Amino acid sequence: MRDFTFAIVGALGNVGTEMRGTLEKSKLPIGNLVMMDVAENVGQVVKWRDREISVVEAAADAFAGVDIALFSAGEGAALELVPEAVKHGCVCVDNSTAFRGSDVDPLVVPEVNAEALTNHRGIIANPNCSTIQMLVVLKPIHEKYTIKRVVVSTYQAVSGSGQAAVDELHAQTRAFAEGRELEVNVYPHQIAFNALPHIDSFVANGYTKEEMKMIDETHKILDPAIGITTTTVRMPVVNGHSESMNIETEKPFEIDEVRELLAGSRGIIIEDDPGNNVYPLAINAAGQDPVYVGRLRRDESIGNGMNMWCVADNLLKGAALNTVQIAAELIERDLVRVPGDV
Amino acid sequence: MRDFTFAIVGALGNVGTEMRGTLEKSKLPIGNLVMMDVAENVGQVVKWRDREISVVEAAADAFAGVDIALFSAGEGAALELVPEAVKHGCVCVDNSTAFRGSDVDPLVVPEVNAEALTNHRGIIANPNCSTIQMLVVLKPIHEKYTIKRVVVSTYQAVSGSGQAAVDELHAQTRAFAEGRELEVNVYPHQIAFNALPHIDSFVANGYTKEEMKMIDETHKILDPAIGITTTTVRMPVVNGHSESMNIETEKPFEIDEVRELLAGSRGIIIEDDPGNNVYPLAINAAGQDPVYVGRLRRDESIGNGMNMWCVADNLLKGAALNTVQIAAELIERDLVRVPGDV
Repeated sequence: MRDFTFAIVGALGNVGTEMRGTLEKSKLPIGNLVMMDVAENVGQVVKWRDREISVVEAAADAFAGVDIALFSAGEGAALELVPEAVKHGCVCVDNSTAFRGSDVDPLVVPEVNAEALTNHRGIIANPNCSTIQMLVVLKPIHEKYTIKRVVVSTYQAVSGSGQAAVDELHAQTRAFAEGRELEVNVYPHQIAFNALPHIDSFVANGYTKEEMKMIDETHKILDPAIGITTTTVRMPVVNGHSESMNIETEKPFEIDEVRELLAGSRGIIIEDDPGNNVYPLAINAAGQDPVYVGRLRRDESIGNGMNMWCVADNLLKGAALNTVQIAAELIERDLVRVPGDV
Repeated sequence: MRDFTFAIVGALGNVGTEMRGTLEKSKLPIGNLVMMDVAENVGQVVKWRDREISVVEAAADAFAGVDIALFSAGEGAALELVPEAVKHGCVCVDNSTAFRGSDVDPLVVPEVNAEALTNHRGIIANPNCSTIQMLVVLKPIHEKYTIKRVVVSTYQAVSGSGQAAVDELHAQTRAFAEGRELEVNVYPHQIAFNALPHIDSFVANGYTKEEMKMIDETHKILDPAIGITTTTVRMPVVNGHSESMNIETEKPFEIDEVRELLAGSRGIIIEDDPGNNVYPLAINAAGQDPVYVGRLRRDESIGNGMNMWCVADNLLKGAALNTVQIAAELIERDLVRVPGDV
């Protein structure tokens, strides 16, 4: 297999940092790795394996010779640079919202719909963090029991809002410990010792964009026939999203059978021994690749209902790891080419 | 109206302290107030209005001459002392689990089922904190639209576990700010920067007792025909429980109509202006009497579905305030007597 030239766009950000780490540990055939970021970070030197790599500016010409670019640079940069990269024959995996709703560009969670990559046109969108971990769990259940409806409430970490939010939680925590007044800048309200039912901006139907992403992306990636409603909540947790999921299926199931099914499914680890206080926790999932599932139990209020608690590192499986897994699928399926590309 | 002699049992605890404050502000005809606590606290002097009251030992004889006792002393003390107090002709409002499941003793949220007080036999149980705030909201909706099913996930504050838990969250927060290792004593895992899907102990069906309380108490207080499933989660929040509620009704509704209904219902304040970042928050509800409701919106995944976010002070409406409101109802309905009492 030939080697590929990779690029990370937004290499110094929260997710870009995790992308560097994930690529470092991966067994992908990476010949060259280009680190791109905004102009003011150009020239910074980043260690990667045994190399020292200088950051270059994320700009159209920088994509010449790049085979696969992993973007975590926000919607604006993606809309501007992804089409330019594609013109250079570079396949782009983008972690922003820019292409998620597209009718032609695939939106992919490798455990769920890797086959959607087949007809890509140079752009693959990476789903929202809270969608990814949910769909890894819903996929095997849907395949076996046909999901009718999902009601999910999230407990999301501040790292999903970027480093400024992590710094703000730490600063508010220190201020509290020292008896000083808490400063509020990143979120509209204090995040320390609070729960904010508000992630991303509000839309006309009273939902937040984060809530609508979970709904719309589930319909695009898994099945438009699934009924789903969501409430997304920001928590004073540094890293690791938790989700309380209520699932109704068409077909009957036994809980032990579901647990076994999930235990044998790709990307999932079962942590479900409540008698010994074992269940998924954000502080344990942080820094880990899998999606953890526990608190699995029957919902007695309907015929075929179940509840569970699902936790994953939102920067890894929720972002960096999923983009790297998409790149791996592209390589394995011989899809690292832009249609019309020579 | 005659004056009544009140007692607080567990007067120095977290909830007992709130009971003292709530009685202080109330307009109830309180002639005398007896402060009871465990033997080692006897003799401590507590300020109440313009009085200085010495704590006496919570023991059978101490209830002689007491008309109404508000208990927040745990299940063991309640099982031992409540029957003794009743023998002395004292009506007991107990905040523990001891009598909640009883077939004869009423379990009361005044906004929901005050009429259940009518045939009390000296004991009235105060429901679980997370049940109370939920039922204040569900009651008017059930009355108008007939609730079929509720799916609720909670975001609960540490104050519900007592002062040791509040101290532990503070200690872990300070340790974090100072770069020291976090000590874990009260909960089975670190509570700072984490979300624990575990409140009270686990039972055979995989639920926690806290989750079963919300189910069983809803059936006893509101309607056994309501389907309800719950996931209860402890959060690094000092005071104020939040709940993400999904409600399915028999009858159709308009969201604006539901908002208006709740705004006109006893004990509820609507905070629902998301465009201006207005929604209920734990840090704002702490120290306040009402149940706050916001994020009200249609659940598009079913015919008659709605989502909302509900927050209340778990020590006040969730405990102390509700017991005082029960006492007020007893007085107003002329029910401050034990059957057979002369």
